[in-house]
Amino acid sequence: MKTISTAKSHGGVQGVYSHRSEACDCDMTFAVFVPPQAKKAPCPVVWYLSGLTCTHQNVMDKGEYRRVAAEAGLIVVCPDTSPRGEGIPDEKDNWQFGSGAGFYLDATQEPFAKNYRMYSYITEELPALIKENFPTDMDRQAIFGHSMGGHGALTIALKHPERFKSCSAFAPIANPMTAGWSKPAFEKYLGADESSWREYDACALIEDGHRFTEFLVDQGKADGFLDDGLRPWLLEAACKDAGIPLTLRMRDGYDHSYFFISTFMEDHLRWHAERVVL
Amino acid sequence: MKTISTAKSHGGVQGVYSHRSEACDCDMTFAVFVPPQAKKAPCPVVWYLSGLTCTHQNVMDKGEYRRVAAEAGLIVVCPDTSPRGEGIPDEKDNWQFGSGAGFYLDATQEPFAKNYRMYSYITEELPALIKENFPTDMDRQAIFGHSMGGHGALTIALKHPERFKSCSAFAPIANPMTAGWSKPAFEKYLGADESSWREYDACALIEDGHRFTEFLVDQGKADGFLDDGLRPWLLEAACKDAGIPLTLRMRDGYDHSYFFISTFMEDHLRWHAERVVL
Repeated sequence: MKTISTAKSHGGVQGVYSHRSEACDCDMTFAVFVPPQAKKAPCPVVWYLSGLTCTHQNVMDKGEYRRVAAEAGLIVVCPDTSPRGEGIPDEKDNWQFGSGAGFYLDATQEPFAKNYRMYSYITEELPALIKENFPTDMDRQAIFGHSMGGHGALTIALKHPERFKSCSAFAPIANPMTAGWSKPAFEKYLGADESSWREYDACALIEDGHRFTEFLVDQGKADGFLDDGLRPWLLEAACKDAGIPLTLRMRDGYDHSYFFISTFMEDHLRWHAERVVL
Repeated sequence: MKTISTAKSHGGVQGVYSHRSEACDCDMTFAVFVPPQAKKAPCPVVWYLSGLTCTHQNVMDKGEYRRVAAEAGLIVVCPDTSPRGEGIPDEKDNWQFGSGAGFYLDATQEPFAKNYRMYSYITEELPALIKENFPTDMDRQAIFGHSMGGHGALTIALKHPERFKSCSAFAPIANPMTAGWSKPAFEKYLGADESSWREYDACALIEDGHRFTEFLVDQGKADGFLDDGLRPWLLEAACKDAGIPLTLRMRDGYDHSYFFISTFMEDHLRWHAERVVL
């Protein structure tokens, strides 16, 4: 692991790091905030998964998470959203596929299967690296994310209910296998057989029997992607049928941007802190 | 005035606007945050002046000011740092002069005198535009800034003590007319006669009899520009001689970045709020 930069912020340290990823077969960059409490004892880890087009940097710059993370004693890990670089297959003018659009799945189709393995990266390779290099208490983890990263958080929590004490999302893609802006990506990454898409779709995972203790979701009512991409009502229906408690807050006037995310970041971090801090 | 974008954030509205500036003879862009309180009554105005290389956007993205501004009921205005665009004289590879480096002064030397008039822009033209277009109480104004913008805030407050109820700075350039990284700019904008530089230098203005009620300054001890560019001890000495109360806080481990600024943004805004909110 290589340190790209570190800076003191809110009493803790915001760092950016890179490493050679085996899962993605390329160099990957990520950001980690370590709160001041970590000088005395290992801290809980909160994973933030970003949305389409983002890197680790968008939330690091605009997410406004450090103040509350420093107060509550949370390590916040912000990974990239896809493999990147020369030799990585991409569709240059398509922001919904390829670079910045890994969808937190393991691709099975060529030429993507070699690099687009964000599910393995986020659930196996990066946690091992974080555990080795930071003062973490990996028995206390939470996960959240935005948009495509909200989808990532929900699906990863549903598949690892024993690992995460809490899961929340800002404007998640509730049902990506049927949404206009993600279905083409699922087909290219996973092939034509839609049954294989279900393990990367929150609503389908719930239908197929996966469970999680509870979810918190904030969604802006003025979000331009609400009807075609996000559709939180599908998650609401799936949770209701399955008996999973879901707090879905529809927020008047808020859009899909970090102006929205940063507004409710404190709420989410405090909600996670209640569940992971001893 | 043209609206470029607006987004709801922390209950208020973060907007970006542009207009034709007479002072700078070009189009200028700026950001304004209007807190929710403005629906009911005019709100105090806090001016944030940015540092070298910045536009309105750096602090808008990374300054973390909206939460507290929304709580305290403050309008926050974030102007650009220089004229920009085709036909504006510039030194392309020099980040300490020209675009992004207006130094909040009115240039007198050719070819800069026509456009580089940020002092007039910030003290006359933009306040008139803000007053006309936003629900402001212009009898309650505060000013602060970072680095070159800290210099701007200090000098403008010293020259308009009746206008501003408070002034603070993050890592300001205390004495730009003698600092290695700003002296060449002063010479190019203002000519060889150094006596004309004094009205744009906080330490010189204080020596020359200008006064302000009090200043608050935060400065990171790990700031790489401390010795050559910033030198807050010169401001400290000038304030001491003049009997101006200065709270100078040297912060262990903090650098010159927005990771530093955002850490102490809340402190500064609450300090201003105590002085401008009724």
